[in-house]
Amino acid sequence: MIEPFDDEYFMKLALKEAERAFEEDEIPVGAVVVAKKQVIARAHNLTEKLTDVTAHAEMQAITSAANFLGGKYLKGCTLYVTLEPCVMCAGALYWSQLDRIVFGAKDEKRGAGKVGDLYHPKTKITNGIMENDARKLLLNFFAKKRN
Amino acid sequence: MIEPFDDEYFMKLALKEAERAFEEDEIPVGAVVVAKKQVIARAHNLTEKLTDVTAHAEMQAITSAANFLGGKYLKGCTLYVTLEPCVMCAGALYWSQLDRIVFGAKDEKRGAGKVGDLYHPKTKITNGIMENDARKLLLNFFAKKRN
Repeated sequence: MIEPFDDEYFMKLALKEAERAFEEDEIPVGAVVVAKKQVIARAHNLTEKLTDVTAHAEMQAITSAANFLGGKYLKGCTLYVTLEPCVMCAGALYWSQLDRIVFGAKDEKRGAGKVGDLYHPKTKITNGIMENDARKLLLNFFAKKRN
Repeated sequence: MIEPFDDEYFMKLALKEAERAFEEDEIPVGAVVVAKKQVIARAHNLTEKLTDVTAHAEMQAITSAANFLGGKYLKGCTLYVTLEPCVMCAGALYWSQLDRIVFGAKDEKRGAGKVGDLYHPKTKITNGIMENDARKLLLNFFAKKRN
């Protein structure tokens, strides 16, 4: 049986959020939170617009999903994010206790993976989903910035 | 010459914020951000009230200070916080590029120091300022919770 709501399906929605960030001249990273195959939060990086270094896509997705659920823990949820979380976001995701985190491109410079395993022991990590699309968007953004 | 605006002075203000958290039945951690010996942001933990694991005192102090300054970096600023920052907060403080971080009590369980040196290389760290007061407040809180 074909599963229409697979990781690629939801990562595409996260990529759509990243494209929105791109259009708003924000570093293009997007995220969605999914519970029972339903998107309960969508967010993209807003550090420039909000003048706030904490306004990463993941942080806002966590806050928004908790708002939706009415509880601060995101057990049973999966977060899809186009770029590997940074240390701040990995720390926030730890507190959220999600079931799964799925990310696209690895962040060689600022990814949490460089520091160690910062995620909650109960959170499963999947990476590399549509990583080329996520990376291309980022490269285009920085190329545009340089010109 | 006596310096009235020393680390103890500002940590006392952070402790006042922690006491406010205590009164609101939040884990009692408080923070202030100081620029040119002036407090530009005050915050305390609000994870319960906001139903949001990201609502730590430091996160809100960063956001509030950046709002006040109209810029997202906190260069030239010092953050005083009663408890050692967690991984999430240390990651956020990294992005903020503060001059200094001063904390009170060490967090043996969830402190960022357990993971490694997560702070920005340009940020100076001071710890142990009024640590007994900060710890006492936390111990009282958890003792109250158990009863």
